[in-house]
Amino acid sequence: MHILITGAAGMIGCELARRLAADGALGGRANAVLTLLDNVAPSPPVGFVGTATPIVADLTTPGVAETAMAGRPDTVFHLAGVVSGEAEADFEKGYRVNLDGTRALFEAIRRHGPGYRPRVVFTSSIAAYGAPFPDMIEDDFLTTPQTCYGTQKVISELLLADYTRRGMLDGIGIRLPNICIRPGAPNRAASGFFSSIMREPLAGQEAVLPVCDDVRMWHASPRSAVSFLLHAATIDLTPLGARRSLMMPGVSATVGEQIAALRRAAGDAAVGMIRREFDPAVSAMFATIPGRFDTRRAAALGFRAETTFDAIIEAHIQDELGGVVRMSS
Amino acid sequence: MHILITGAAGMIGCELARRLAADGALGGRANAVLTLLDNVAPSPPVGFVGTATPIVADLTTPGVAETAMAGRPDTVFHLAGVVSGEAEADFEKGYRVNLDGTRALFEAIRRHGPGYRPRVVFTSSIAAYGAPFPDMIEDDFLTTPQTCYGTQKVISELLLADYTRRGMLDGIGIRLPNICIRPGAPNRAASGFFSSIMREPLAGQEAVLPVCDDVRMWHASPRSAVSFLLHAATIDLTPLGARRSLMMPGVSATVGEQIAALRRAAGDAAVGMIRREFDPAVSAMFATIPGRFDTRRAAALGFRAETTFDAIIEAHIQDELGGVVRMSS
Repeated sequence: MHILITGAAGMIGCELARRLAADGALGGRANAVLTLLDNVAPSPPVGFVGTATPIVADLTTPGVAETAMAGRPDTVFHLAGVVSGEAEADFEKGYRVNLDGTRALFEAIRRHGPGYRPRVVFTSSIAAYGAPFPDMIEDDFLTTPQTCYGTQKVISELLLADYTRRGMLDGIGIRLPNICIRPGAPNRAASGFFSSIMREPLAGQEAVLPVCDDVRMWHASPRSAVSFLLHAATIDLTPLGARRSLMMPGVSATVGEQIAALRRAAGDAAVGMIRREFDPAVSAMFATIPGRFDTRRAAALGFRAETTFDAIIEAHIQDELGGVVRMSS
Repeated sequence: MHILITGAAGMIGCELARRLAADGALGGRANAVLTLLDNVAPSPPVGFVGTATPIVADLTTPGVAETAMAGRPDTVFHLAGVVSGEAEADFEKGYRVNLDGTRALFEAIRRHGPGYRPRVVFTSSIAAYGAPFPDMIEDDFLTTPQTCYGTQKVISELLLADYTRRGMLDGIGIRLPNICIRPGAPNRAASGFFSSIMREPLAGQEAVLPVCDDVRMWHASPRSAVSFLLHAATIDLTPLGARRSLMMPGVSATVGEQIAALRRAAGDAAVGMIRREFDPAVSAMFATIPGRFDTRRAAALGFRAETTFDAIIEAHIQDELGGVVRMSS
């Protein structure tokens, strides 16, 4: 099994490579070759017994997609992209990386011609959706993104579906919930505070909350995100029909409910590390977010995630903190 | 008023230019300058008193979009594109013209920078939709195209919405019904028979019907298509909110209902000119088409079309046949 990961140095890319190395196989076939593409050097996962080839380059540079695809990987995880805040701030870069990059990859696959049809797992996003929202968002709710990032994700979904329909690849787009609790340093995603108000207090540090307690989001842990990717890479996609992208399961929680779960996990002292600093701009951005999904298509296909925010905190404590919460007092 | 039409040599482009010349004004402002872009030479409309500048070039050729936009037109009608059959047959050309061409145009608009925000009327298509369909398709039905052409149209709609949201243009995408009865020679659109089984008999000629009588389609006349474009160019778009593309009104009719209307307009002899020659491939393509829409958003914005297929035939007889049906016997 030869696997290509684009965006392999990112948070999910690293976790995915680690899991592929640890599992040693994907869908019953031994993981022999890992090609790890990113514009910053990706670290080959510790303990991987096969061949890991890093490619430090940008998918939009001519020839890079061809180089990445030269070994005709069986499975492609396409995670590369600039995040929401950056795509909005740098209009040209967002379209270049998130749209042209995806197209360059799909074109490189297509040019391998008839007879080659790799599984392509594309990470789309909750940003595919745009207000106004019903109370419960069903699988057939329309995608009307209201950010550059969301627009680029939906365009990539459309390309994925069309290339799949034409038999050039076998694609599935998984719309990730907000990934929470993101480990490590904050990135430029506008949604970063959902993680930092949990992550920093659990590490005994202060965090800033820029929105009100009633803001509701749809969350899944990094561990669940990786499990979605692995599951998407191995299942029969025939039941998807023509609609190749779908929302992943998650936990619907308000910021207030997140904080209540933090209190149960780490006590009042941890909650006391959250400093409320209302930001009208950030609040406006999250005034109408899709917070509640009925993900029955994903459930029918076997995708699973946490069902409580307590479980999301527990996953972080196990995976990132060695099972230990450092109390602030 | 300076108006740019891309695809100005096409059927709708020609009709539009003729109407703009005849009306002499758009939204109360005199039509002083017409820029007519197409890759085949567009004819300046007869009787136009302003300056008409043809540009014979392809939008995807570097510099062409910039040349077309150099005069900073107030209104842009973006009609250019390859049709469904051709976009499916020539994968690369379809994406180049229908996606890269649109992007080149929007980028040329964006580069004129803050303070310039032209009205852009984009002709999208019923091909934006994909099966499975409900009996009645509502305005919030999702767009899941199942052709290259439809995919390229929906991607262009997404770009239109994003550039509009960012204040770079003021866009509206109008999803045209099947245009019926198309004048002139057949083009490479797979849906051509819906027109030819009316047009040819009305001109005393034989036509081939490749599908069964119960195939249902959503139709509007070329005259209505032009009225949609003119209306879209002049109305306040604020009520559209973030959802900048919408289905246009039309007439839902089966092939059998079309033929019944032909019989009422031109008698049994005309109907006798339709030769049934079942084509399994064409029939499969039209087995699941969206045939019935509730277009209340368009109605609320003032878009109007024919309400019977008889009126569609009557429009053709008036506009193309000088009011005269040539009987075949």
